[in-house]
Amino acid sequence: MSELEPAVQSGGHPFAGDPVFDLHVGGKMAIESSVELAGADELSLAYTPGVARVCTAIAENPELTQHYTWVPNTVAVVTDGTAVLGLGDIGPAAAMPVMEGKAILFKQFGGVDAIPICLDTTDTEEIIETVVRLAPSFGGINLEDISAPRCFEIEDRLKERLDIPIFHDDQHGTAVVALAALKNALKLTGREPGETRVVISGAGAAGVAIAKILIGAGITDIAVIDRRGIVSSDRSDLTPVKRQLAEITADRNSRTGSLADAMKGADVYLGVSGGTVPEEVVATMAPDAIIFAMANPTPEVHPDVAHKYARVVATGRSDFPNQINNVLAFPGIFRGAFDVRATAITEGMKLAAADALAELVGDALAEDMVIPGPFDPRVGPAVSAAVAEAARRDGVARA
Amino acid sequence: MSELEPAVQSGGHPFAGDPVFDLHVGGKMAIESSVELAGADELSLAYTPGVARVCTAIAENPELTQHYTWVPNTVAVVTDGTAVLGLGDIGPAAAMPVMEGKAILFKQFGGVDAIPICLDTTDTEEIIETVVRLAPSFGGINLEDISAPRCFEIEDRLKERLDIPIFHDDQHGTAVVALAALKNALKLTGREPGETRVVISGAGAAGVAIAKILIGAGITDIAVIDRRGIVSSDRSDLTPVKRQLAEITADRNSRTGSLADAMKGADVYLGVSGGTVPEEVVATMAPDAIIFAMANPTPEVHPDVAHKYARVVATGRSDFPNQINNVLAFPGIFRGAFDVRATAITEGMKLAAADALAELVGDALAEDMVIPGPFDPRVGPAVSAAVAEAARRDGVARA
Repeated sequence: MSELEPAVQSGGHPFAGDPVFDLHVGGKMAIESSVELAGADELSLAYTPGVARVCTAIAENPELTQHYTWVPNTVAVVTDGTAVLGLGDIGPAAAMPVMEGKAILFKQFGGVDAIPICLDTTDTEEIIETVVRLAPSFGGINLEDISAPRCFEIEDRLKERLDIPIFHDDQHGTAVVALAALKNALKLTGREPGETRVVISGAGAAGVAIAKILIGAGITDIAVIDRRGIVSSDRSDLTPVKRQLAEITADRNSRTGSLADAMKGADVYLGVSGGTVPEEVVATMAPDAIIFAMANPTPEVHPDVAHKYARVVATGRSDFPNQINNVLAFPGIFRGAFDVRATAITEGMKLAAADALAELVGDALAEDMVIPGPFDPRVGPAVSAAVAEAARRDGVARA
Repeated sequence: MSELEPAVQSGGHPFAGDPVFDLHVGGKMAIESSVELAGADELSLAYTPGVARVCTAIAENPELTQHYTWVPNTVAVVTDGTAVLGLGDIGPAAAMPVMEGKAILFKQFGGVDAIPICLDTTDTEEIIETVVRLAPSFGGINLEDISAPRCFEIEDRLKERLDIPIFHDDQHGTAVVALAALKNALKLTGREPGETRVVISGAGAAGVAIAKILIGAGITDIAVIDRRGIVSSDRSDLTPVKRQLAEITADRNSRTGSLADAMKGADVYLGVSGGTVPEEVVATMAPDAIIFAMANPTPEVHPDVAHKYARVVATGRSDFPNQINNVLAFPGIFRGAFDVRATAITEGMKLAAADALAELVGDALAEDMVIPGPFDPRVGPAVSAAVAEAARRDGVARA
């Protein structure tokens, strides 16, 4: 049926010869039929009249959706295009290549069918209502590249209204992988979680989620830094989310001041902010420090500088060791959640994913190997198994 | 990566052994990646950091979406589950098997990537707003199984607000195929379109669209019948759409009364209503009558009865000759529209699709062959070529 191939695929394109653009011609994904329609008999099973019996059965027992549709294996990758990579608010159309990329990673690393949904609205209420209306079509919702602080409210409200997994990957994917790598870095440097002092630079989606997951993992001495310094309860300029952050980190850390104040003697620096940390500030950290400079494409501390002062260095980049890459988390997390038909993704499931990732490193643990690589074939199965088990433990599994 | 296959596919299911349900296990469709991600190099082209350059280029020139995303080849198959097949208002979850079926037909017969979207709302305004917000993700919108009269307003308003093809298949797909078959039936029985008297039984989505396309094709002597009889201007119980119908059919046909009144001496009966026409009413039609009894699964006139009085008989069923099957139209119509990046699907494009379908029968024209079969490989290419040409003629083509 060659005449029916999309015409766009055969023509030239404006950036022909550029490998990135060449690879993107026609997009990166497609629909495939999983049943063969060779003739009238198959057509009458897959479509009318046969399909009517499946519809009737589901109308009588909605649980049957799980068996006879693709819904339980699908996730909508939903964005409004306001916080795309490091590019910021580029809008829904320009966000599509990232969402397609996410979708093919979901498929390759988790066997999950993901559909990119780029919304033509940035209004919190409209995004929430739209996703609620879409929900019968999907087994889960992966929120992506929606700017803070709207992303927090959107995720929280969707969790209240829907009984399918809702996951904002920029928050929790990053947090899970960072925690996994940090656990191994602490082990390597002989630190106890409860005795470790952490600076998180960035109080956006990722920074907030990392702070919360660290506390869940027993790492409670945390200073979170935004553009104005340490997020602390004495400040009058805090958003509701930052106020909550100031409260939950105040138990152990009542410091106030600048990034430089926070970094003095700190054991761990976790950068999710962009910007640069001056070398003289890095130099004030504790001996055997741990530096995860995760901003992309430019780490907050260049690895060459970081290595002068730190024993373990990680970045978000694939061209340095210890890449903190979300693809280690989200495909396996949804795979595990879907395998047990989880109604939510709990804190326990995220912590279990981080543990599973950390443990995979095993005897290979070294300063340049605190987290598995994205193409390690053990990652998806290990994360999904751990997540499914945690879902059962947390009482959110339906199968 | 066998561990990452959806678990649901390997288990048993409640209706195991029933061929229809066996075929539906796990759903009928999946996402596939159209680029290979074998290692870090491909990952850095298809995802970060490479993808950022594609996003930036599209942000600067949104037209590039056409080259570097899957959007221009995608259609959302949107329903609210209120008028599914002959089953009626079964809700969005139970509608999914039909929408998946539609999606795989789009792929097989048109090379179009279709995504089922079953909405959890039946409110006209909410459906419109939701589709407008989804629009950046799709190259076209196929409305499906939304009950009348809401379907008319939803389609009209979306056409006003969006510059991508909007097509309500229950209306226009049926109308295109019925017109194609009718043209051949008129030729076979030696009738001129302008001298043919037509009864359309059913004033829902399909009936309204058939009346309009027939008028566009020069068949103007039409009586449309609803539950209360002939839709005529003297009635006070008409919806806005039926009132419009009464007005546009009044030129040639000022009859009032019942279906039986309309059928006396009629040349053509087009049934899209369900219900049954009594044999004694069928017997009053003109000699060499044409009967398209398209209700599924039970035609309004059984073919055995119809053949006693009619020379050409068609149904919606695959087990009788002359099947009026939408799959002959919608895949090729969207393929043709997408190939020229049409901003709309015009009346001219629909008429061109009907002409192309009718002409394909050629010398094979016979009483039991007024329309090609759904697996005739010439159908998709012929319809898409005719639709693309008509789009250019109508000034809605962008390529």
